[in-house]
Amino acid sequence: MRLLLGPGPSNAYPEVLAALGRPLLGHLDPEFLAIFDETCERLRAAFQTRNELTLPVSGTGSAGMEACFVNLLEPGDTAIVGVNGVFGERMCEVARRCGAEVVRVEAPWGTALDPEDLLDARRANPRARVLAVVHAETSTGVENPVAPLAVLADTDTLLVVDAVTSLGGIPVDVDGWRVDATYSGTQKCLSVPPGLAPITFSARATERLRTRERPPQSWYLDLGLVGEYSRERRYHHTIPISMVYALHAGLGVLLDEGLEVSWARHRAAGDRLHAALPDLGFELIVDPAHRLPELTTAWLPGGADDASLRKRLLEEHDIEVGGGLGEFAGKAWRIGLMGHNARPEIVDRFLTALSASASR
Amino acid sequence: MRLLLGPGPSNAYPEVLAALGRPLLGHLDPEFLAIFDETCERLRAAFQTRNELTLPVSGTGSAGMEACFVNLLEPGDTAIVGVNGVFGERMCEVARRCGAEVVRVEAPWGTALDPEDLLDARRANPRARVLAVVHAETSTGVENPVAPLAVLADTDTLLVVDAVTSLGGIPVDVDGWRVDATYSGTQKCLSVPPGLAPITFSARATERLRTRERPPQSWYLDLGLVGEYSRERRYHHTIPISMVYALHAGLGVLLDEGLEVSWARHRAAGDRLHAALPDLGFELIVDPAHRLPELTTAWLPGGADDASLRKRLLEEHDIEVGGGLGEFAGKAWRIGLMGHNARPEIVDRFLTALSASASR
Repeated sequence: MRLLLGPGPSNAYPEVLAALGRPLLGHLDPEFLAIFDETCERLRAAFQTRNELTLPVSGTGSAGMEACFVNLLEPGDTAIVGVNGVFGERMCEVARRCGAEVVRVEAPWGTALDPEDLLDARRANPRARVLAVVHAETSTGVENPVAPLAVLADTDTLLVVDAVTSLGGIPVDVDGWRVDATYSGTQKCLSVPPGLAPITFSARATERLRTRERPPQSWYLDLGLVGEYSRERRYHHTIPISMVYALHAGLGVLLDEGLEVSWARHRAAGDRLHAALPDLGFELIVDPAHRLPELTTAWLPGGADDASLRKRLLEEHDIEVGGGLGEFAGKAWRIGLMGHNARPEIVDRFLTALSASASR
Repeated sequence: MRLLLGPGPSNAYPEVLAALGRPLLGHLDPEFLAIFDETCERLRAAFQTRNELTLPVSGTGSAGMEACFVNLLEPGDTAIVGVNGVFGERMCEVARRCGAEVVRVEAPWGTALDPEDLLDARRANPRARVLAVVHAETSTGVENPVAPLAVLADTDTLLVVDAVTSLGGIPVDVDGWRVDATYSGTQKCLSVPPGLAPITFSARATERLRTRERPPQSWYLDLGLVGEYSRERRYHHTIPISMVYALHAGLGVLLDEGLEVSWARHRAAGDRLHAALPDLGFELIVDPAHRLPELTTAWLPGGADDASLRKRLLEEHDIEVGGGLGEFAGKAWRIGLMGHNARPEIVDRFLTALSASASR
């Protein structure tokens, strides 16, 4: 049994694995619909929102990203995208494939985006349809500030936030931050296997679905149609039953614990790791003000070989950590302490194994 | 525990439910990649193909449909689509959203498409990029002939086949029928929960990915990128780990049994149902030559109330059957005997419950 300390998937809660093995129900069975509705209600609690259009999209986090852009954008629209890592880049690519003009607002990898730069870009492009930012950049371990972007709610530009690696691990305040469209993934701080993308749309983002000139280019991710299943039980596609069981169970664990307690647990685990890594020769990449607790990036010690060290951890200690992506490939690690794994004893087990592997 | 005799999901094999509850592995873990590769190899066996590009798409069967069209079509292309039910209609809608001109070839609901009509449409539109047909129309219980369309391989038109409800239940001969792109779902005759879409592309369909003028409008379903994960272990999106375990296990059950034995089991179960339904006042809709064994449509007996009879079966006997879709809504049932449920004792349990419910 692997200890999954990479950028996701994290290990699932035992309650989640038990739920996955439950016998199937039909996707229109009243018993399943009750579980589905309760899952959506739990998602609202986790997202801290009262948005009606809140549901799990039938794909992974990247499908959630695509669902936001294909539903909100039409060809010729302008999308402002914050880019300081792989997932900001991915947003640009997805928006371009929707036919949008993309305005990039960049920051160096490992640093946070400046919200003023994003708001300046909007002032320069006042008709921008969306402004999108990754809350927790999984490729760099950076938290990008979202709260200062709440002022967009007073403009015609919709605020889109990637909460894939933040939901459940650090505060995500959809209504407080006046976010219009947010998506997440199940396999990070929710400790549910990958396969669903929780999503929530504000009233004005939902209104946008009705005022489009033409339907979204994706039928599968058309939230107007998907929402009809959620609201009116109208068949659209067959919902991934077992994965909904799993998400329902994982959200149950999170909400039983309480959001604040979960955030504090992630914070404490991250702090414990951050305090110890420099003594092992790892250099933390992100400044403390923007350093995620649930996903830590660190430069490898001089002379350490990325691939062989990760292989040793995996084969000798059954521990997976993540290699660097993009600019960080071969030079940095990504260490996840997410959901079920955000615990001091897990940090200590990792540090012990790392000491043993690195000293060989 | 429900007996799921609707149009899907079917009940999962016990081996599948056990696999779902297994601890997670990372999506780049060598142990997971071995399971993933073996899953793809098992899919080749089930599809009867040697196509290299054969893998489970990270969404339900409808995502498989969309993956075929977004990868093969570009704006302005012509798509010929056979339409004799909901899923042929869905193909038209998905193709239109790709910017294609759609040429419809129709047959009345409950009857099969004439392959000659489809081939005539291609002769009238020789530059058509794709010709698409639903093999097993889940809305009507009709098998549309695919084998006569093999001649398309000698033209520039790619043959796309929906095998969502046929794979594992009746012969699907991808290489023998020279099909270019085929997709299926997991929750029908494979008896795996919904959430993945097995897909297979011929060499020339794969070549089409390389000769497109611009990238597919979907990043998530871009098979050029998804294929790089499969071939080169390059990260694209996080694969639904637990669902891959489940599909791996379900295909293992199917192949251990043998395709021919599974087809014969579905045939025998369907025949048993078809022989008995008329005595209960149900009228079979589809002529025997095109009647699917795994999904039976029948007109309700005169005076029977669709909703209340289905509710009684569900609440008193824990048996789900499917109502009619579209033209058949309220007037016909769809009874699935798929995968794990294609057994004589299941048919008998259903008939006993139906007799008891209908006579009240």
